[in-house]
Amino acid sequence: MTSPSLADHDTIRAVQWQGDCLRLLDQRKLPFVEDWLDCRSAAAVAQAVRDLVVRGAPAIGIAAAWGVVLAAQGGDDLERAMALLRAARPTAVNLMAALDRMHACMAGGADAASLTRTAQAIQDEDLAANRAMGAMGAAWLQRGSGVLTHCNTGSLATAGFGTALGVIRAGYAAGNIVRVFADETRPWLQGARLTMWELQRDGIPATLIADSAASHLMKSGQVQWVIVGADRIAANGDTANKIGTYQLAIAARHHGARFMVVAPSTTVDMATPAGDAIDIELRDPAELLGYAGQRTVVEGARAWNPVFDVTPHDLVDVLVTERGVITQPDVDAMRAVFGNDGTN
Amino acid sequence: MTSPSLADHDTIRAVQWQGDCLRLLDQRKLPFVEDWLDCRSAAAVAQAVRDLVVRGAPAIGIAAAWGVVLAAQGGDDLERAMALLRAARPTAVNLMAALDRMHACMAGGADAASLTRTAQAIQDEDLAANRAMGAMGAAWLQRGSGVLTHCNTGSLATAGFGTALGVIRAGYAAGNIVRVFADETRPWLQGARLTMWELQRDGIPATLIADSAASHLMKSGQVQWVIVGADRIAANGDTANKIGTYQLAIAARHHGARFMVVAPSTTVDMATPAGDAIDIELRDPAELLGYAGQRTVVEGARAWNPVFDVTPHDLVDVLVTERGVITQPDVDAMRAVFGNDGTN
Repeated sequence: MTSPSLADHDTIRAVQWQGDCLRLLDQRKLPFVEDWLDCRSAAAVAQAVRDLVVRGAPAIGIAAAWGVVLAAQGGDDLERAMALLRAARPTAVNLMAALDRMHACMAGGADAASLTRTAQAIQDEDLAANRAMGAMGAAWLQRGSGVLTHCNTGSLATAGFGTALGVIRAGYAAGNIVRVFADETRPWLQGARLTMWELQRDGIPATLIADSAASHLMKSGQVQWVIVGADRIAANGDTANKIGTYQLAIAARHHGARFMVVAPSTTVDMATPAGDAIDIELRDPAELLGYAGQRTVVEGARAWNPVFDVTPHDLVDVLVTERGVITQPDVDAMRAVFGNDGTN
Repeated sequence: MTSPSLADHDTIRAVQWQGDCLRLLDQRKLPFVEDWLDCRSAAAVAQAVRDLVVRGAPAIGIAAAWGVVLAAQGGDDLERAMALLRAARPTAVNLMAALDRMHACMAGGADAASLTRTAQAIQDEDLAANRAMGAMGAAWLQRGSGVLTHCNTGSLATAGFGTALGVIRAGYAAGNIVRVFADETRPWLQGARLTMWELQRDGIPATLIADSAASHLMKSGQVQWVIVGADRIAANGDTANKIGTYQLAIAARHHGARFMVVAPSTTVDMATPAGDAIDIELRDPAELLGYAGQRTVVEGARAWNPVFDVTPHDLVDVLVTERGVITQPDVDAMRAVFGNDGTN
């Protein structure tokens, strides 16, 4: 009997190209039902993105790329299909990047075969980047580490393996991680619903906590690393991520735990000088006025529902991208890796 | 037309003695239904405490005192009635203190009239203490303050007015508070369900936030004071309170916001030298695995559900009790007010 390998902890692929349709694991139904939706047109993919069947910035971008392939196979108007896909989640940067790449491919002929190769490359490169980040990030974890993560940054949100959750996969498989804690991540509960499912499914024992219990947990000495993803990283290393991330960074610093951000280089935006230039999306207060579809707050109540917050770079100990690891990121360290031309 | 007075913001009395029954606002049904339950026996009061019709340590103690009066009026065995009430929430310190006081009264004759006077005194003294704390705490708030509170520490949890929420009532009525934010307070959502209802009902505009959004809110400069209650305060000022309080204290210090604890002197336990001697109750993980009977997390998942955490005294800027205000509490400052004999 051989000991479990990394592959044993990496079995989930939520976005699967089938040659003539795109098969998506329906994340709306997780964690209780594992249901798959087959999309046979760009319109069906756009609908799935809009309905949150597929979520997570890299996963959305990959799904959209396959949506363009489906349009080409069906003889649809490709420009129209791309506009439809682009509008499905208008603020998703990875969606735009994937569609831009498909568009560049179209300029070279737009046959289904070359579009298929490009979509496959987008998917394969994401998985490869995640594996590279997993290995690099895990190398920072001392043996016996306890880790805490936030939201869902796993196979469900990417081509597979995940970003922050990829580091946790790699660190667990290497025997360096002995305890994994997951924030439930209000208001959407991605930690409770998705991360706990994903870790259980892949044989990594994990413990759920309330978001507000993180500091109490850190005080107990059970957390050596907080490991999170990112939605956008400014030129100085300031990191926008799911609401609650900033609070974890403050608590980690207070308790001497270390703070790691794991994100592909496409997340880095050298044209944004610092975090205060990042616009924080405010979502419908209704998301805070109920829980799992059940209203909990008096009618007429107000709520403030920012989706993201910004962690200043001086609270980030380690930033992992597929291009390498930056410790104590600042504008000089960032420029050394990403240049300063404002492009990704 | 006169301007609103403090009384306009203090209309809720959740525990009401009716002469022959105890009328309780059913907190299980808030915020959607205002339903009252009339208890006509000690057994009915014990059941109401057990079923969380009434919650909040001071409110439970007051209800239990009236339960003893009902037993006396009905000619029941008083010792048996008290044992029943005592067992209803076995860890509630205020419940035991109220019953001890009723028991001492019984030693002097146990007629219904004197028991009624004692129960009324317990209730009146709680309300008076809350009003005193409200005035003292509010005096610390500069004009234009924004405040953030956690859990429910209001009229619903006490004889009326509340502890931390009493300071907010008084500060709002005095015109010093211009913004009130309430944490939703997972896992029981007392902030979302109860505090938001109570503040709306009493005409104090408030905004609900996710527990994890507190630091992002503080960074925006909208919070000058975090104001919370306490479940137990050690001899050095270390404060046990609802899970999430400690995280707020760290965040407040990080952002230069000030941190106020408001609690009656019965909460102070000079026999406990420091917070690390306070046993933190761990509750059923199921409370984190769903809400109101709706499961959100995969079957078999583990969760860690501590009810309280401890805020070290050096993160407390101001401690308000009805005996006075202590700034930067430590063991010497605490002894000066509360003595060091281990009694309350």
